Amino acid sequence: MPSPAVIHHTFTIDRTYPTTRTRVWAALSNEAKKRRWFAESTGFVIHEYSLDFRVGGFERTRFRYGADGPPMTNDCIHLDIAEQERLVFAYAMTIGGAPLSSSLGTMELTDVEGGTLLRYTEQTAYTNGQDGSEGRREGTIGLFERLATELAEHA
Amino acid sequence: MPSPAVIHHTFTIDRTYPTTRTRVWAALSNEAKKRRWFAESTGFVIHEYSLDFRVGGFERTRFRYGADGPPMTNDCIHLDIAEQERLVFAYAMTIGGAPLSSSLGTMELTDVEGGTLLRYTEQTAYTNGQDGSEGRREGTIGLFERLATELAEHA
Repeated sequence: MPSPAVIHHTFTIDRTYPTTRTRVWAALSNEAKKRRWFAESTGFVIHEYSLDFRVGGFERTRFRYGADGPPMTNDCIHLDIAEQERLVFAYAMTIGGAPLSSSLGTMELTDVEGGTLLRYTEQTAYTNGQDGSEGRREGTIGLFERLATELAEHA
Repeated sequence: MPSPAVIHHTFTIDRTYPTTRTRVWAALSNEAKKRRWFAESTGFVIHEYSLDFRVGGFERTRFRYGADGPPMTNDCIHLDIAEQERLVFAYAMTIGGAPLSSSLGTMELTDVEGGTLLRYTEQTAYTNGQDGSEGRREGTIGLFERLATELAEHA
């Protein structure tokens, strides 16, 4: 049976944080901070997490949802970094050993009234025949809420 | 001066080749073949080319346009491979040492009347303030014409 057609979409999320670009950038680029808000999400069991924050460096996550969920992988590579301003990366996810999706992600930080605007654009390619981009968008909104908590609770 | 906003676009190109999927796939995955039609384009001087065709493997090109053009780089990583059916990759380009663009590329091969349909989708993120996606689309149409020549002239 041939592979299903790849399904492409793009979504954008804007979120303003009441703090400096320096602090938001640190939460994106520091391994301990990013692990806390990005990887250690509620309900997920993390088997492995590493972040090598430089162009060509990888962020790798091995995890599952709950104790009995199928093993999942997220391999991310940083493609373009403009310190405290812009980050472009690509990441591929698998679930139960099968490809799920590949994405190009763009994070842009801008000073705005009241803090820092994080604009996130994700260009998705779902390869398993089902478009998960709406769920991905909702999940990412949840992650950005966790980032807000990270910025509020940690120096 | 802050970085300009990243410009995102998506384009798709369909091209049918009068040959088998096996042969088209070979031209995408074999280093010598791909170097010939993809890297050695008219007017480009190639300083370095390598292709490691597996998930997580890189295709790296170091080149310039003409003898006096600025040095350019194209670093591509393979994210998802379904043999003879699908290839998803991400690539970043720089020119004169400065970031130009990052892209997610999807190639899909399908048997059709008269041969093999190659459907290519590129999701672009231009980071230098100028949207080059229309030029990228035209350049890619040119590359796919070169692939036609490759398939016609080489076994």
